[in-house]
Amino acid sequence: MNFQGIYHRPKSNYCYAYDKDTVHIRLRASKGDLENVILVYGDKYIWSQNREIEMKLECSDKYFDYFIAEIKPPYRRLAYYFILEGKSERYYYTEWGFFDEIDKDEVYMHFFEYPFLNKIDIHKVSEWVKDAVFYQIFPERFYNGDKFNDPKGVEKWGEAPKSDNFFGGDLKGIIDKLDYLTDLGINAIYLTPIFESYSNHKYNTKDYMKIDPHFGDLNTMKELVQKCHERGIKVVLDAVFNHIGYYSAQFQDVVKKGKKSPYYDWFYIREWPIETDPPNYYTFAFAPYMPKLNTENPEVKEYLLNVAKYWIEEADIDGWRLDVANEIDHSFWREFRKVVKKTKSDAYIVGEIWHDSLPWLLGDQFDAVMNYPFTRVCIQYFAHRNLNNKEFKELINETQIRNTQQVNEVMLNLLDSHDTSRFLYKAKGDKESLKLASVFQLTYLGAPCIYYGTEIGMNGGDDPDCRRTMEWNEDKWNKDLLNHYKRLIKIRNEHEALRRGNFKWIEGLDDVVGFVRETDKEEIIVLINNSNQDKEIQLKVNGTEYIDLVKDKK
Amino acid sequence: MNFQGIYHRPKSNYCYAYDKDTVHIRLRASKGDLENVILVYGDKYIWSQNREIEMKLECSDKYFDYFIAEIKPPYRRLAYYFILEGKSERYYYTEWGFFDEIDKDEVYMHFFEYPFLNKIDIHKVSEWVKDAVFYQIFPERFYNGDKFNDPKGVEKWGEAPKSDNFFGGDLKGIIDKLDYLTDLGINAIYLTPIFESYSNHKYNTKDYMKIDPHFGDLNTMKELVQKCHERGIKVVLDAVFNHIGYYSAQFQDVVKKGKKSPYYDWFYIREWPIETDPPNYYTFAFAPYMPKLNTENPEVKEYLLNVAKYWIEEADIDGWRLDVANEIDHSFWREFRKVVKKTKSDAYIVGEIWHDSLPWLLGDQFDAVMNYPFTRVCIQYFAHRNLNNKEFKELINETQIRNTQQVNEVMLNLLDSHDTSRFLYKAKGDKESLKLASVFQLTYLGAPCIYYGTEIGMNGGDDPDCRRTMEWNEDKWNKDLLNHYKRLIKIRNEHEALRRGNFKWIEGLDDVVGFVRETDKEEIIVLINNSNQDKEIQLKVNGTEYIDLVKDKK
Repeated sequence: MNFQGIYHRPKSNYCYAYDKDTVHIRLRASKGDLENVILVYGDKYIWSQNREIEMKLECSDKYFDYFIAEIKPPYRRLAYYFILEGKSERYYYTEWGFFDEIDKDEVYMHFFEYPFLNKIDIHKVSEWVKDAVFYQIFPERFYNGDKFNDPKGVEKWGEAPKSDNFFGGDLKGIIDKLDYLTDLGINAIYLTPIFESYSNHKYNTKDYMKIDPHFGDLNTMKELVQKCHERGIKVVLDAVFNHIGYYSAQFQDVVKKGKKSPYYDWFYIREWPIETDPPNYYTFAFAPYMPKLNTENPEVKEYLLNVAKYWIEEADIDGWRLDVANEIDHSFWREFRKVVKKTKSDAYIVGEIWHDSLPWLLGDQFDAVMNYPFTRVCIQYFAHRNLNNKEFKELINETQIRNTQQVNEVMLNLLDSHDTSRFLYKAKGDKESLKLASVFQLTYLGAPCIYYGTEIGMNGGDDPDCRRTMEWNEDKWNKDLLNHYKRLIKIRNEHEALRRGNFKWIEGLDDVVGFVRETDKEEIIVLINNSNQDKEIQLKVNGTEYIDLVKDKK
Repeated sequence: MNFQGIYHRPKSNYCYAYDKDTVHIRLRASKGDLENVILVYGDKYIWSQNREIEMKLECSDKYFDYFIAEIKPPYRRLAYYFILEGKSERYYYTEWGFFDEIDKDEVYMHFFEYPFLNKIDIHKVSEWVKDAVFYQIFPERFYNGDKFNDPKGVEKWGEAPKSDNFFGGDLKGIIDKLDYLTDLGINAIYLTPIFESYSNHKYNTKDYMKIDPHFGDLNTMKELVQKCHERGIKVVLDAVFNHIGYYSAQFQDVVKKGKKSPYYDWFYIREWPIETDPPNYYTFAFAPYMPKLNTENPEVKEYLLNVAKYWIEEADIDGWRLDVANEIDHSFWREFRKVVKKTKSDAYIVGEIWHDSLPWLLGDQFDAVMNYPFTRVCIQYFAHRNLNNKEFKELINETQIRNTQQVNEVMLNLLDSHDTSRFLYKAKGDKESLKLASVFQLTYLGAPCIYYGTEIGMNGGDDPDCRRTMEWNEDKWNKDLLNHYKRLIKIRNEHEALRRGNFKWIEGLDDVVGFVRETDKEEIIVLINNSNQDKEIQLKVNGTEYIDLVKDKK
């Protein structure tokens, strides 16, 4: 037995409360090393009534098998250890290691524990997100609905985007195009920043309490949300709280008054007078126009928490996407969650973190993150085609196993965004790759998020090229792709199994990747052929009826 | 290379902020598998300026080597990966796994990250604990200083303790014996509960705001703390917040009024009327006289947080030991920490958790826990003698590596307590075992905690036998043991290296266990011979002078 491959640690993705009655226990072992894993569990105060359950193989990645068991402890306390059965060996695995036997007098010291299932600690995620298909909009580039609020010197719609040019897209433009979004079938939009700011991306906020005048005003915003809600579309805004804009009133006051400014401690000023090249104050990514906010300062905290609350109360938004979420302190995010969930209990809180995000996803901070690890695996498999089917499944499993099940159920799964080149660009324009990737995205666990224009075949390299103006000339749309998106979104919207069903790979398929999404009522099989050859697959299917959802025939 | 043995995960004991400038990075690998580990690190926004540092071997346990590096990121952001060098192989190890090479365009996705060193998130522990030698007192059994407040029917001092008998020990008794404690050399006491309660242990609180009348009153308590402080002794009380007593006003109101009681939601009542055999409400360990408190209820939370605050403000206590800490919700403890540290910034918060406690020890909850894993290793090695020197060191290392350095520096290291049989009992009365174990306890990293009477050779099996009355007849003291304790405590108090120095095993000693505690100014060598034979050890010692602290000669 490869003892070094065994891993378990309570109160992590390896042991967590899934809901108020259920604890999930996972055990990691070297791939193929264990034939069977038994979980011995009970209440530590009546341990004599302990039980045993065989753990199921949840999934595997390149190096490991992951076993899982679901336990409903009747008194909410759970003590446990494992029995590991290899080909010819059998060990007890406890918090203290590996043993041939456990001395009964010492068993109390050996336990792993989920000591008590306290409801308040359970990671409760936003329920509606399980049913959501998101559409990400970069407002300056989506549609110019109001020519009167355009910035000076807007370029002609369709010209090349630059880091500092403008096209006049605005909130009215989104309102005007709601029919398009409804027709596409999406039911949630996530907008990059819309508060006052002199840049086209608006990540350098001037005033968090004001809609950028080139985008509209409070009324336009209210109208947008109201009209979205009428159509069953949720609205999520971008919370840029790591830094503010150089031209915000607060930072300008410091620029002018230095230590005499009441805002001096809102920032991390190293020296005064302020210099910008290089900045002598903390910034986002050394960018002088984005001074970092000191979110440890109670005044800053109060200010930003009020912003978070204000837009929910005033405009009725449904959640926040958190910019540069991992550079802000955990303490801030814990209070943020309390304020946001108190204001709207099912508001979605989704962090921008590109990496392993477990420390933010255990219940006290975010609901989920933008699933860039998912993005990367999809790019490698569908666009670059440098993974085989087995590697693809293993890497997807690896992204899953990092987190708890409830988090995976509401992850924001994206193929591209305003911060990446477009998927189609990475796939060198191969629309079949995109179609296949989107099949996976739209049938997989978690909330798919489509970056505006990807559905009609828009291309674009790294920022700013990925922020081109939306193509509204239908002649230039890839209608086959658009219809493909519509069909898939419709299928997802119509079938609960694709939104809330279990996810399970179909084993024994070599030539294609297949998986099942399953509820009590229905079972949906997805088969993905990422090769250039036709493949014929024979599947044993349970049940009396079998519907081909893509071709819409029985 | 045994890839399955490699482990690293940011924002855990494997990567954490040690202080406002320093991040500790640890990497786990299969024992003996790696010859060298290089940490490649930098600021992700100026990655081209990245640096490399060779990681040091911090320690090893049975299966693993642990490597460590200390980094001071100039802009507080830290991105990194590892280069692993085996005998003949070399791999890059990143968040995405093991690679022969890393594509420079993709390096951003590969990083592990400590995204930003936010001061508020750093686990700042109580500084004075590093200099503390604790003495744990079970007040009912320490000394009867006031015969007028004795419970009815007290037994004669020295009779056998039972689960429900009384001996009259009280707070005045502790005050009367402060000379004894000062003479012993300790500088902190931790008292098991002292609030009103009908039991001798007082874990079933009747009133948290009142000193048990058999122990004294508010004035006695104030006097105790004041007199302790005059002698430089800190005082830590027991916070029993998981459950209350059956005869508390709150629970009695529920017993009488059921759902009409304003306290109904203070508890987890399954059915009313209340029944006790078995209890139809949640309790501690199925004990009907200890109904579990619903710490999720804001009223309960407010009440208990006020208790925590009150005794610091009113009696000036220096910290709280948290009973059954792991069965209370994390949310409660997070607020508890805020309230306690706000009231007294260096108050010690030490949880009763017998197991791996990382989820409570990352900065937002406790300073440390009662180090029962340490206890167990000491019992196995010194009392049962069923570990060899190598195994002992490996197991001690394992207890260390579970936590961050700042936590290890303030762990409450105990050999026995009111909840265990006494160390001497486990050692079958062998006082030499106890002497050796206490040498380790009093020279090791963390705060030693001596259970009353252990220093004079008191014996006792499991509860209630471990709660015998303190022996005050000096003729019955083991004076050799007591002098040993006094000498060691004095040495610890006089030498900063034993309190705040680094801890490092001396390699190459087969017959004994040796380690060094070291500051810039001094180096103290501790050698422990846990065999029955004399051993002769040759050591190369640096420096000009060498003092034998135990025999007090140069």
